[in-house]
Amino acid sequence: MSLLASIKFNEAGLVPAITQDAESGRVLMMAWMNEEAVLQTLDTGFAHYYSRSRKSQWKKGESSGHIQEVVEMFLDCDGDTILLIINQTGPACHTNRPSCFFQQRVNDTWVSFEKPQE
Amino acid sequence: MSLLASIKFNEAGLVPAITQDAESGRVLMMAWMNEEAVLQTLDTGFAHYYSRSRKSQWKKGESSGHIQEVVEMFLDCDGDTILLIINQTGPACHTNRPSCFFQQRVNDTWVSFEKPQE
Repeated sequence: MSLLASIKFNEAGLVPAITQDAESGRVLMMAWMNEEAVLQTLDTGFAHYYSRSRKSQWKKGESSGHIQEVVEMFLDCDGDTILLIINQTGPACHTNRPSCFFQQRVNDTWVSFEKPQE
Repeated sequence: MSLLASIKFNEAGLVPAITQDAESGRVLMMAWMNEEAVLQTLDTGFAHYYSRSRKSQWKKGESSGHIQEVVEMFLDCDGDTILLIINQTGPACHTNRPSCFFQQRVNDTWVSFEKPQE
């Protein structure tokens, strides 16, 4: 498939994928995809990633229900990073926060500016 | 420095950094930082990255003038990805497009939806 052929997977067969919320524009997370995760994402219309710790491909939200419906998909200039624009169900972060990027730099430290959703 | 201590650099000593435009909200690029690039970014207030091909740290826009003034800096939940919110001078992409993510998925192919700026 020509979509896959343009993607430069790294030496581990993975490509980083950035996920951005279609509504708020917030960057929600960064995760990795292998070829199968890209294909599953394309086939189903929902974001799939590759877990480096579990060494397997997974559907985001499979257990939590916090799925990501893909609205648009972009590839960067050198073909080695994917950007997904998605509709997020529930919080994107496993800490139950809307975005994984909740630690903000304030002077010499990181400050969590958002509480987990209840 | 406690800011550095919370960042999980990978086995190559690098951490991915996503750059988002403060004004438009567009994701502009993804690049890598080593410890020195993080420190230079913090010290100067302008984005610095690490070039894996040139094996050296560089200031974004050093030669092109397309510098990135850092407005905010975030770290993700597991400490292994940085998000920079920046004011971009000129185009962010080396192809002279505003963002590196100009290849959009349309069916089975990637389509460049933006022309380089003149």
